[in-house]
Amino acid sequence: MPGKLRTGVFGATGYTGRELVRLLEHHPEVELAFTTGSGHGHVPHETGLEREASAYFLCLPHGVSAVFAARLRQAYDHALVVDLSGDLRLPDLDAYRTWYLQEHPAPALLGHATYGLSEVYRARIAGTRLVSNPGCYATSVLLPLVPLLREGLIDSGDIVVDAKSGVTGAGRAPREELLFAEVADDLSAYSPGRAHRHVGEIEAVLGEAAGATVELTFCPHLLPVRRGILSALYVRGAAPAAELADALRQFYAGSPFVRLVEAPPRLSDVVGTNDCLISVHAASPGRAVLFSALDNLLKGAAGQAVQNLNLAMGWQEQAGLPVHGT
Amino acid sequence: MPGKLRTGVFGATGYTGRELVRLLEHHPEVELAFTTGSGHGHVPHETGLEREASAYFLCLPHGVSAVFAARLRQAYDHALVVDLSGDLRLPDLDAYRTWYLQEHPAPALLGHATYGLSEVYRARIAGTRLVSNPGCYATSVLLPLVPLLREGLIDSGDIVVDAKSGVTGAGRAPREELLFAEVADDLSAYSPGRAHRHVGEIEAVLGEAAGATVELTFCPHLLPVRRGILSALYVRGAAPAAELADALRQFYAGSPFVRLVEAPPRLSDVVGTNDCLISVHAASPGRAVLFSALDNLLKGAAGQAVQNLNLAMGWQEQAGLPVHGT
Amino acid sequence: MPGKLRTGVFGATGYTGRELVRLLEHHPEVELAFTTGSGHGHVPHETGLEREASAYFLCLPHGVSAVFAARLRQAYDHALVVDLSGDLRLPDLDAYRTWYLQEHPAPALLGHATYGLSEVYRARIAGTRLVSNPGCYATSVLLPLVPLLREGLIDSGDIVVDAKSGVTGAGRAPREELLFAEVADDLSAYSPGRAHRHVGEIEAVLGEAAGATVELTFCPHLLPVRRGILSALYVRGAAPAAELADALRQFYAGSPFVRLVEAPPRLSDVVGTNDCLISVHAASPGRAVLFSALDNLLKGAAGQAVQNLNLAMGWQEQAGLPVHGT
Amino acid sequence: MPGKLRTGVFGATGYTGRELVRLLEHHPEVELAFTTGSGHGHVPHETGLEREASAYFLCLPHGVSAVFAARLRQAYDHALVVDLSGDLRLPDLDAYRTWYLQEHPAPALLGHATYGLSEVYRARIAGTRLVSNPGCYATSVLLPLVPLLREGLIDSGDIVVDAKSGVTGAGRAPREELLFAEVADDLSAYSPGRAHRHVGEIEAVLGEAAGATVELTFCPHLLPVRRGILSALYVRGAAPAAELADALRQFYAGSPFVRLVEAPPRLSDVVGTNDCLISVHAASPGRAVLFSALDNLLKGAAGQAVQNLNLAMGWQEQAGLPVHGT
Repeated sequence: MPGKLRTGVFGATGYTGRELVRLLEHHPEVELAFTTGSGHGHVPHETGLEREASAYFLCLPHGVSAVFAARLRQAYDHALVVDLSGDLRLPDLDAYRTWYLQEHPAPALLGHATYGLSEVYRARIAGTRLVSNPGCYATSVLLPLVPLLREGLIDSGDIVVDAKSGVTGAGRAPREELLFAEVADDLSAYSPGRAHRHVGEIEAVLGEAAGATVELTFCPHLLPVRRGILSALYVRGAAPAAELADALRQFYAGSPFVRLVEAPPRLSDVVGTNDCLISVHAASPGRAVLFSALDNLLKGAAGQAVQNLNLAMGWQEQAGLPVHGT
Repeated sequence: MPGKLRTGVFGATGYTGRELVRLLEHHPEVELAFTTGSGHGHVPHETGLEREASAYFLCLPHGVSAVFAARLRQAYDHALVVDLSGDLRLPDLDAYRTWYLQEHPAPALLGHATYGLSEVYRARIAGTRLVSNPGCYATSVLLPLVPLLREGLIDSGDIVVDAKSGVTGAGRAPREELLFAEVADDLSAYSPGRAHRHVGEIEAVLGEAAGATVELTFCPHLLPVRRGILSALYVRGAAPAAELADALRQFYAGSPFVRLVEAPPRLSDVVGTNDCLISVHAASPGRAVLFSALDNLLKGAAGQAVQNLNLAMGWQEQAGLPVHGT
Repeated sequence: MPGKLRTGVFGATGYTGRELVRLLEHHPEVELAFTTGSGHGHVPHETGLEREASAYFLCLPHGVSAVFAARLRQAYDHALVVDLSGDLRLPDLDAYRTWYLQEHPAPALLGHATYGLSEVYRARIAGTRLVSNPGCYATSVLLPLVPLLREGLIDSGDIVVDAKSGVTGAGRAPREELLFAEVADDLSAYSPGRAHRHVGEIEAVLGEAAGATVELTFCPHLLPVRRGILSALYVRGAAPAAELADALRQFYAGSPFVRLVEAPPRLSDVVGTNDCLISVHAASPGRAVLFSALDNLLKGAAGQAVQNLNLAMGWQEQAGLPVHGT
Repeated sequence: MPGKLRTGVFGATGYTGRELVRLLEHHPEVELAFTTGSGHGHVPHETGLEREASAYFLCLPHGVSAVFAARLRQAYDHALVVDLSGDLRLPDLDAYRTWYLQEHPAPALLGHATYGLSEVYRARIAGTRLVSNPGCYATSVLLPLVPLLREGLIDSGDIVVDAKSGVTGAGRAPREELLFAEVADDLSAYSPGRAHRHVGEIEAVLGEAAGATVELTFCPHLLPVRRGILSALYVRGAAPAAELADALRQFYAGSPFVRLVEAPPRLSDVVGTNDCLISVHAASPGRAVLFSALDNLLKGAAGQAVQNLNLAMGWQEQAGLPVHGT
């Protein structure tokens, strides 16, 4: 396939890896040269260096992924590496230690990755060769809030996020709490308050947008569905809901995947797409509530990874991705 | 059945009515003398007065239910009437007009009903002959918050509730948005901010507890499960999470159905029981999050109705109800 | 859109109609000129003749659909009409009366429609202007059995079909038995034995294939899933399972959408595709069991309708349809 | 607890063990003296002999369970042992080797256990001290068919069973194919034809009833529900459907848990009960179809185990079990 970019996926058998493979197989600019099957939280047996490609996607467990990233960056410095794990998302070693409860596996790499929140960091991503792909919850929180904090339209000191995710967000490695008989007919909250790993990632990016420290209240829930995240974001501030909506509409005017809608978006609006839909509503005095919905395996993982590939390569942003209404 | 209390259910074919019938059929002190099948949002053809009983349960649509209640109160003034509709939950005619968008069907009755939040108003319920049974969402919000507001442990001016309910809460009348093919694999928020009818009911009771006006932010969600409500309650205030938990533990010490738990309760912990389980967790500085879980058809409707019957009759509070651990 | 075929859909708001619209909107040879929203079992208010097009799709209730078909055939005799209702599937008026319990709405049309079982009747469909699109259950039974009966490899006198379908097969009109709270966590058989309408349609086509009367035992089930049909077909006959599989493999050699597989196909293998996957297994002596899986809204309805459009127009058979592995 | 029977459960943490514990905790004649937590397919570390009781329930993996049974029988020969595994269900060592692909772990015990199909073998169970509790699929097939074969009302040479089970039937040990994301929205057939282990058990009992060798066609399916089995049984024979129904109604006249119903029973009719509901329907000429529904964890496992305890002890058959309509 002359002219096509040679790509490969490490960890192609988990839910994210499988979705990514599907996208790459149909991407008009891409040749999928190899996949390795060591997803599911298992460490690959090989070093990764046996595989030469122009763009690598790492769907590997954290703690392993950055080791691969470092090795590939060194061996093939022309190649693009997109890391879908959490290894390169945090700003420094201390933060990594705090949220992942272990030492960073490739300290030299930290700080050299571009955080791949596509619509927010388009310019940075364009020139990079190392992308840290955002977490699924993080994407659903950051896309609605970053523009509002940059403009100072909401109070950075009082943000509450109540998020709900389908089970594919928890991965494909067999665990009792993910069995059908445990998840069906149920709803459970976990890591309440500030305990979930994505909190560190979210607070770092929100802090940069606000120019101030942000401490989030974040409660994720496990839904009895396979795919999709719906987050409710409760914010405070002087600006009325309509003004918040306007600011978001303006910020995302040129972004095909992020759109403002009137009624709260639901999972079925976004599952199977790379979209993130956002709505804004007035609440009690001084408060507003925003909803954001996305597919955790697409805009929350594999879809955004492909979008970042497109940005890094200078291709059309939608290439190889499902676009709403076309 | 000598010595048993003669009871009847109007509107026994909806989900709540059916559950109530099941409970009454097994209640040791009760004879179920009649049921009428006009649930599902339809108006009964008869007047209700043909049925003599010592306790009536009304599982009828709002706007109709209070008419029955008024008629039955007048004809059989010794009898207990438990109204499971929203007709008698609000404090005055204006509030009813605001939240139900119609004139009250039996204005003379308003203000004469006892609000049947069993654990909170036990003493009032003991002497009454007219109970207004609380809404399912309202119960899940009020049981955790009333004791904290009474003690002044949380800020009455900043309460955010993110609630999730199974579909039986929306009734059994066929509507497209309740079809399996619309609800399965999905999650949707509705009536965001302050739009849901239960907000009026909740604010009235919280206001009484706080001794101040309360304006709530309340966002309900429709879950792809049949039964159960899980509410996340985000509060602010000086008291640390452990103190909130202590206050609740103390308040509910003698209440078999309401219990504090360590981890966030999940739907499967409460479905099929009359329990309301509550947990308290620290969040961002100055914030705490509480979770409350209950079965919308039991503690949120039919179960609490039977509990109120027990209180009004001076029987054992658990009579005829499933009790955890026995 | 010069050169594109002008098409229209009557009844575009039901599950089948909506799926069809999605396919036509992306079909490379087609312009979707109009849709009408009178699906859900309701009769359209207009006559249909106001809409000029070169190909019409009728997703209307039976009893109404053939009236539209007759009117459109008369007014626009150059145009193709694809009827997705059951009105034109049966061989004669008596059969229609027997299975639909009413008189045929357009007797003159009966016998003039080509039964659109694409892979089996490709040649007939190529020249037609009136297609009767097969039922979803019927397609899942006929694709595996027609080739075997034509070759005399199975006993036409003893066929048992146990079929399971997702709820979108029952349509979108609100009915209590289709509510989420009724369907979830459940499985129910209905119309057991020979009572389902598709039996008449299936027996007619199987009888033609066998050259003999066929009387089927057919038991459909309603699954708690949105999409997909899995049928188990229990057959008898001299030929061993491997020979049955060979015959099917050979029959469908040039058919991209129908494929033999080793393990029993499951719903997730076919949902979202126009495929019908078939497996064959030995059972007790003299018996074999076949499984066939398809998406009831695609190969079982809208997908096969588009496939028939392609055949009738002489286009590539896969045009506008998802093809496995590409 | 004077006068109560001292019982214990080995393997109390799997789905069956947990259900059994719930039943025994509420059984009026029973004291639950101990449970061990080594369900989930893991082998217990202890020998079992440390635990003295008057009735033992073994919810252990096959291959281990019979070892415990043998040890307990030897040490405490007055005690009742109810084995819920498959170890003691087959008639001889060859059959065990064929269906379980290993040598029998306690050959001396084989042939000494009473097969605990409660309604069919009441008399045998009454005097026994070793019960082999039937499989869940087996119970759903045997209850409708044994009476018909005993009476010669159906052809023993042509029986087809299409069975569908909720996932708790597959146990609680984490396996990828039982994850929520794999099971939800799906339906899959497995072990088609004559491959499932329960076939050996079913054929042995049916053969005894028929007085002839029976070779079954049996296809089980995995449903996206937690509990419940619905089996469709396709039979042949001279007797019309009404006669089959009469024979079953008569056979089960004194059996509170097994009942004939008119319409096909559905999972929601039986989940949470110890009932097995059966319906009979005419099909194609010479054929009838029966449906049987039960809860795989109750009548298909723990419920029938308690029923067998009741029979073995000479207690009321319904003691400690939910009875329909009371």
